[in-house]
Amino acid sequence: MKPIKTVKTILGRELPDYIEGYGEVKPFQGAFSDGGIKTRKAVKLTNVRPGDRKVLASLEEALDKANIDDGMTISFHHHLRNGDHVLNMVVEALARRGIKDLTIAASSIFPVHAPLVEHMRSGVVTGMIANYMLGPVPEAISRGELKKPALMQTHGGRARAIESGELHIDVAFIAAPTADTYGNINGVYGKSACGTLGYAVSDAEYADKTIAITDNLVSFPACPIEISQVFVDYVVQVESIGDPEGIVSGTTKITKDPVALIIAKRAAEVMKASGLVKEGMSFQTGAGGTSLAVAAELKGIMKREEVVGSFAAGGITGYLVEMLEEGLFRTLFDVQCFDLKAIESYRDNARHQVMSASMYGNPHTKGAVVNNLDIMILGATEIDTEFNVNVTTGSNGVIIGGSGGHSDTAAGSKLAIVVTKLMKARLSMIKAKVTTITTPGENIDVVVTERGIAVNPKRVDLLEKLSKTKLPLMTIEELKTLAEKITGVPKGIETSEKIVAVVEYRDGSVIDVVRMV
Amino acid sequence: MKPIKTVKTILGRELPDYIEGYGEVKPFQGAFSDGGIKTRKAVKLTNVRPGDRKVLASLEEALDKANIDDGMTISFHHHLRNGDHVLNMVVEALARRGIKDLTIAASSIFPVHAPLVEHMRSGVVTGMIANYMLGPVPEAISRGELKKPALMQTHGGRARAIESGELHIDVAFIAAPTADTYGNINGVYGKSACGTLGYAVSDAEYADKTIAITDNLVSFPACPIEISQVFVDYVVQVESIGDPEGIVSGTTKITKDPVALIIAKRAAEVMKASGLVKEGMSFQTGAGGTSLAVAAELKGIMKREEVVGSFAAGGITGYLVEMLEEGLFRTLFDVQCFDLKAIESYRDNARHQVMSASMYGNPHTKGAVVNNLDIMILGATEIDTEFNVNVTTGSNGVIIGGSGGHSDTAAGSKLAIVVTKLMKARLSMIKAKVTTITTPGENIDVVVTERGIAVNPKRVDLLEKLSKTKLPLMTIEELKTLAEKITGVPKGIETSEKIVAVVEYRDGSVIDVVRMV
Repeated sequence: MKPIKTVKTILGRELPDYIEGYGEVKPFQGAFSDGGIKTRKAVKLTNVRPGDRKVLASLEEALDKANIDDGMTISFHHHLRNGDHVLNMVVEALARRGIKDLTIAASSIFPVHAPLVEHMRSGVVTGMIANYMLGPVPEAISRGELKKPALMQTHGGRARAIESGELHIDVAFIAAPTADTYGNINGVYGKSACGTLGYAVSDAEYADKTIAITDNLVSFPACPIEISQVFVDYVVQVESIGDPEGIVSGTTKITKDPVALIIAKRAAEVMKASGLVKEGMSFQTGAGGTSLAVAAELKGIMKREEVVGSFAAGGITGYLVEMLEEGLFRTLFDVQCFDLKAIESYRDNARHQVMSASMYGNPHTKGAVVNNLDIMILGATEIDTEFNVNVTTGSNGVIIGGSGGHSDTAAGSKLAIVVTKLMKARLSMIKAKVTTITTPGENIDVVVTERGIAVNPKRVDLLEKLSKTKLPLMTIEELKTLAEKITGVPKGIETSEKIVAVVEYRDGSVIDVVRMV
Repeated sequence: MKPIKTVKTILGRELPDYIEGYGEVKPFQGAFSDGGIKTRKAVKLTNVRPGDRKVLASLEEALDKANIDDGMTISFHHHLRNGDHVLNMVVEALARRGIKDLTIAASSIFPVHAPLVEHMRSGVVTGMIANYMLGPVPEAISRGELKKPALMQTHGGRARAIESGELHIDVAFIAAPTADTYGNINGVYGKSACGTLGYAVSDAEYADKTIAITDNLVSFPACPIEISQVFVDYVVQVESIGDPEGIVSGTTKITKDPVALIIAKRAAEVMKASGLVKEGMSFQTGAGGTSLAVAAELKGIMKREEVVGSFAAGGITGYLVEMLEEGLFRTLFDVQCFDLKAIESYRDNARHQVMSASMYGNPHTKGAVVNNLDIMILGATEIDTEFNVNVTTGSNGVIIGGSGGHSDTAAGSKLAIVVTKLMKARLSMIKAKVTTITTPGENIDVVVTERGIAVNPKRVDLLEKLSKTKLPLMTIEELKTLAEKITGVPKGIETSEKIVAVVEYRDGSVIDVVRMV
């Protein structure tokens, strides 16, 4: 082992220049410091000829054919969310075979994936790569139960890593709500329908082997085709790929919390004052109650002012579908459907378009959708006075999320608004230093709370516009002081030196690490 | 120059082992001799960031930005067929700049591209690569007016060559009936609408630079998106990319020629007797009058026997759209729309699905659509007694076509039927040796003429089935003798030693060459 030196990110975080189980550390140098020529990697494949069959008798046969061995990286997509059966099914089968030292590259991990904890302990799984993790798995990782540090990426960063070859996938397992006998896949039909399969596209295209696992095997050809036969080696039929109750929520609903509604109203006023709410505008928000309340406020303004937007993007909810159907947006870009209404709309309305994770946020393409975003509504678990945002760890230092598309959309959008209560669970949301930096402050334009609104001082133009309104502007330091008057100054959390997760920015540099609590 | 040795294809054609201006010759060794691991090549790209603009003021600015230099390869797709303005516009602009020694990689060349002949003479264009060529350009090539031998590929073979890196495209020019300001493209809207853009997909994805040229620039985002923004560097708006009259025919019509109708009827009887006309069947035919007459016969059988097919594929005509709409096929796979009805159907009917040229016929993917074809109806300009087919040259040795999807579909389909009159222009269609081998006889199952039907002796099973019918079976030699009784034995054509075109089989081996007349 070579001696470890310390390197510093542009945000001042000190990192080792080499992390065992991860490799060389390229410290974060700014959101747009990654110039130059980029590469989509070469892919090796075994061609399929007339007469060859892809449907195998069982998962076991597919594992035989894919030659999965110790130390390999296998990938999964998270469109079945907390209803996913596929990841557990595959890892369990590999554990039974005595395979060790697997790295799981899943676009996200949910509580349903709790059995992974046992596989981590037994050495079946020694590496984890994800954009978002919730539940027992990240809790175990935070306690130091994974052999190598986990790697946390962004949605766009994961696609970049796969397509560039930085993240090599030996075998991709594609949970397929519908697959035909020749490997064409869609997510809109079948008992486990989940809508678009945007997060699975790079996996299917760039893995050494791609295996579709379906509980709705149909005759050739499937229609529509979201992932093409030309990328799929084998098709396996199983009883169930997921639990519909965990896959989609019934209806996503706007919050009724009066404080959250005030925040939403203020966020809408910020948007309006920014001058971006105009013909051709674009917008993205999350699926949470407050995020939807912001969408509802925006809807009111767009209707009153007769504004037609170009697109709304992201994970799509029924609420955005309604806005599409009412003609408030010309199209939707959908990387995952959050509810049944979104699935139906994507299936039936040509203006509800899919985007792959790469098209959504990969910074190393000829232009991701986030680059054309005007307004982005973001959440936060912590914000610091440099506007850096943490959505990776809780205030106790335990991993409870990750960037997902947070950093991608913040970087791409003209106006990135963090909406948050000033305090949560008697803790101030504004810190001198956030526990983990997920998204750099340079890409956060304004923080909206119920008590006050802080504009990033970099955005002189925005500050000027907002100064003409009656919005309660203050500096981020003032917001922090205001909160701390009530909550007191939060104590820092104590961590060991051991690094349990590496947080990669979308360009593949390391923006922070998570240390064992 | 190294000494030239002679190599032999498995079909007995003698070829030099090296051809100046082409390179090493890998002689054809059989339709499925290309085993092993295949590669999709790496692609270098310049990433596009928030704020970067893709719309350029003019074609000239795009040519500046793309740094086009002497000796480069530039590519075009042929969906605008004989109405295309883009190829001539670009080559003319490059000629004005004094650029020399270009190779034009166009999926097909039509009479409208006649100005290329002058560019060949002046040295602006010294290489041509196409899957099909008709008109003054191939005539000039046949006369030896192109410096290097032209390279004739198949539709699937071209996609293979591009994706493997064998055919490196410096700049792809995508004629775009609709493009948005960020490079998303579709072919279904705009005054130059042509339908699907299946032949342009590999070009856009694998070229060093991709430039969309459109006469219908729309706001972001276009809908639908056929070619994604992530592959397009620049967008240029021009007055017109094509002449609608040359782009699509009004309505493709079934032949009224009584001899052709007899051939169609017999072909249908062969299909029926083969046992392949059954639930889930798949079918492809061309857009010519006889081909459509075969489709009409098939339609009658399918209706009477209440057969629902899985898919029809290929270039799609209104006739196949009607079969889709009547429920005779569950879906269509469309690589190019031949008429307005096909364009409208593709635009409006989700069951009318696009396929890229790669998905259509590239033998080095994880399974092309042709692999699932049951019945393929093919044309021919000559057939030999080994069932080898020529669709590349006329009986005078001049290039008048090329494989297009001929070899791809013949290789993939279970039953490849050549339909042809026994004699054309007082010449027998059956020769001892065809002038040029386009498609190897091993993939041709039966030849249907008005005088008799010859089954490839390899197909013992088919011969047995057809023997039970009243169809006029004979050997291919008997058919030849029958024709020659009327036409006399055709004289061989005299050619010089000079090779004017290299004919590549879909796997990249050389199946034949065309020599100067």
